[in-house]
Amino acid sequence: MNYPFSDNVRSLNPSAIREILKYAADPEVVSLSAGNPAPEAFPVEAIQTITARLLAERPIDALQYSTTEGYGPLRARLREYMSDKHHVGSDDDEILITAGAQQVMGLAAKALVNRGDTVICECPSFVGALNSFRALGAQLVGVPVMPDGMDMDALEQTLKSHPHARFIYTIPNFQNPSGVTMSWEKRVHLYELAKRYGVLILEDNPYGELRFEGENVPAVKTLDKDGLVLYAGSFSKVLSPGLRVGYAIGPKPVLQKMVVCKQGEDVHTTILSQMICDEFMKTCDFEAHLKGLRDLYRHKAQLMLSLMDRYLVPCGVTYNPVQGGLFVWGTLPDGADMPKFCTLAVAEHKVAVVPGNAFLPDENEPCQSFRLNYSTPTDEDMVKGMKRLGAFAADFLK
Amino acid sequence: MNYPFSDNVRSLNPSAIREILKYAADPEVVSLSAGNPAPEAFPVEAIQTITARLLAERPIDALQYSTTEGYGPLRARLREYMSDKHHVGSDDDEILITAGAQQVMGLAAKALVNRGDTVICECPSFVGALNSFRALGAQLVGVPVMPDGMDMDALEQTLKSHPHARFIYTIPNFQNPSGVTMSWEKRVHLYELAKRYGVLILEDNPYGELRFEGENVPAVKTLDKDGLVLYAGSFSKVLSPGLRVGYAIGPKPVLQKMVVCKQGEDVHTTILSQMICDEFMKTCDFEAHLKGLRDLYRHKAQLMLSLMDRYLVPCGVTYNPVQGGLFVWGTLPDGADMPKFCTLAVAEHKVAVVPGNAFLPDENEPCQSFRLNYSTPTDEDMVKGMKRLGAFAADFLK
Repeated sequence: MNYPFSDNVRSLNPSAIREILKYAADPEVVSLSAGNPAPEAFPVEAIQTITARLLAERPIDALQYSTTEGYGPLRARLREYMSDKHHVGSDDDEILITAGAQQVMGLAAKALVNRGDTVICECPSFVGALNSFRALGAQLVGVPVMPDGMDMDALEQTLKSHPHARFIYTIPNFQNPSGVTMSWEKRVHLYELAKRYGVLILEDNPYGELRFEGENVPAVKTLDKDGLVLYAGSFSKVLSPGLRVGYAIGPKPVLQKMVVCKQGEDVHTTILSQMICDEFMKTCDFEAHLKGLRDLYRHKAQLMLSLMDRYLVPCGVTYNPVQGGLFVWGTLPDGADMPKFCTLAVAEHKVAVVPGNAFLPDENEPCQSFRLNYSTPTDEDMVKGMKRLGAFAADFLK
Repeated sequence: MNYPFSDNVRSLNPSAIREILKYAADPEVVSLSAGNPAPEAFPVEAIQTITARLLAERPIDALQYSTTEGYGPLRARLREYMSDKHHVGSDDDEILITAGAQQVMGLAAKALVNRGDTVICECPSFVGALNSFRALGAQLVGVPVMPDGMDMDALEQTLKSHPHARFIYTIPNFQNPSGVTMSWEKRVHLYELAKRYGVLILEDNPYGELRFEGENVPAVKTLDKDGLVLYAGSFSKVLSPGLRVGYAIGPKPVLQKMVVCKQGEDVHTTILSQMICDEFMKTCDFEAHLKGLRDLYRHKAQLMLSLMDRYLVPCGVTYNPVQGGLFVWGTLPDGADMPKFCTLAVAEHKVAVVPGNAFLPDENEPCQSFRLNYSTPTDEDMVKGMKRLGAFAADFLK
């Protein structure tokens, strides 16, 4: 049968990352292509204790249907935490618990995007978010990412030429894939432009708590006096991605529509997962846990950068500085064939990295960059993988 | 700010059931309006033991990112179980684990429906599914449900007048809300019509295992030689809805598109939940557990029907026979104002039922029916609620 796929999804294909990850399933391959937290980042004992207690004391609450908006105590705790610690959220905002921050992107697109509408995103940007916008028929328009965040002149030109853009999607901290953090001055500028052109901002901040160097930069959402910013947070990088718990904090009318859309997607987020997140924040030392994660990722990032300096920089590869998050963005010298480099690296040299064009609004645009991850591999595998990549690069780029 | 909601969701509002459920939060109100499994239906001890073991033996697997298609062992187990026990699924089919069966409806709509496309559904039907279709811009066209399922003449007329309908949505067993089961003859007829008119069938079967009377009727999917049926199953009614685990079995090309859409919605279903479902099927006596559920719901249904006979039938209320599932569909005599009946019942007489028009493709159509649930209330509350409803009905309908 010739299946009648919707116009939105007919051209939507599994992401290039997934194709790379298929190679990465080969046990001989060292994967620097994932985006998983380090296994040692999970507070396993605490989650064991909490889960046993929840299922012993409140099994029916943990197993029964719950409300679409999310588990009440977790919503209240996150509102207080995000307000007190990060100055995110006001009385004009609501909070919605979601199946990871990914669902915030999907619900925002469903609530705001008609087929053919423009969504402005960073170039490069997180392919999972881009695909969730594409699945609703969004036309993605990319704004180049510079070492201090989006190019604001290009953003203003884009806003002028796309006056009906539905929102601006940004990952301001340790952006996936570029690793870049947007400066405070650019955040203020971004907010001013959004206000002037009457366009919403979708601020995705999964890595914000993972700053292991430099000064914290407040969220764009801290500037929001006009109901312009929809903020997405997540437990995936700070507790566990498998639990699938994220959240949106944003203007009440937008959140209300997202709640109705979420009813039709999954009714509510797994309630046991929500209760585990709430109990972890309530009964464990969350700040000490975050400090442990920062120490862990500082170590792993420093190792990765030292390996870059040793094995890839001498071949002409450059990279963006890293102050947090999970990724390094490397760039091959002009003229090098990046897709071929990534394909041969995994197919012949058993080391997987992600070709940068996977993160472009238009995957067919030329791209010289690739993404490396340092959170998932063991230190030993990172060394082994980077040695392989360096040896291959020395040959490929000579 | 005047938020630029998409055309699809602008007119989408929280369901009428949710408004009723707000009243039902009043502890004085006896709720016969929910659709939750009975609290005593949860195998609490088994889930406690399984969860503790999983988190002790395989904590990283349970907490790390997983694959969009679902947990491999659960997918294999369900394929075998559904094939061996229910003859559902062939080599041309694939299986996808979802966040409850609700996500099957949302993903099917995203993959198949353009704004303005026709989706054919039963009238009445499950409002959560209807809303997931509406959220993608579907135009719902209802086909009346008779005591043995959809009116096949009306279905054929609808297929003729809507030649580009994207799919036919049906809940063939113990339909929500009508309680009706489609006869085998009508299932064959439905399949023939779908084949003749080249239209997919979305078969939603959350209650199929909860038959406590009469003979099992095989799924429409058992007839599928042509890749025409997308089947949705769920653990919500047979294990726990809070875990949010359901599944789709359907033609590979359709499932592939749904996988890409699911990546953009939630990346994957909570992995701990999937592992709990798999271990429960593997290590517990699933058939004995299902038998226990059937015994429980048989008892509760019989109690509800005896209360109907005693308190509502004498007032002129009629109801559909019940052989399984969670619901009874009552109908007021001609001329009675059903919405007023339901509103006064909860507001003044502290008993909540769901007005039937909530389940219509067009909620503004006239409707004489209402939905009663017998799975959620205790026996004592069921008696109390039905006494209240009967006393009110005797006055309201006199």
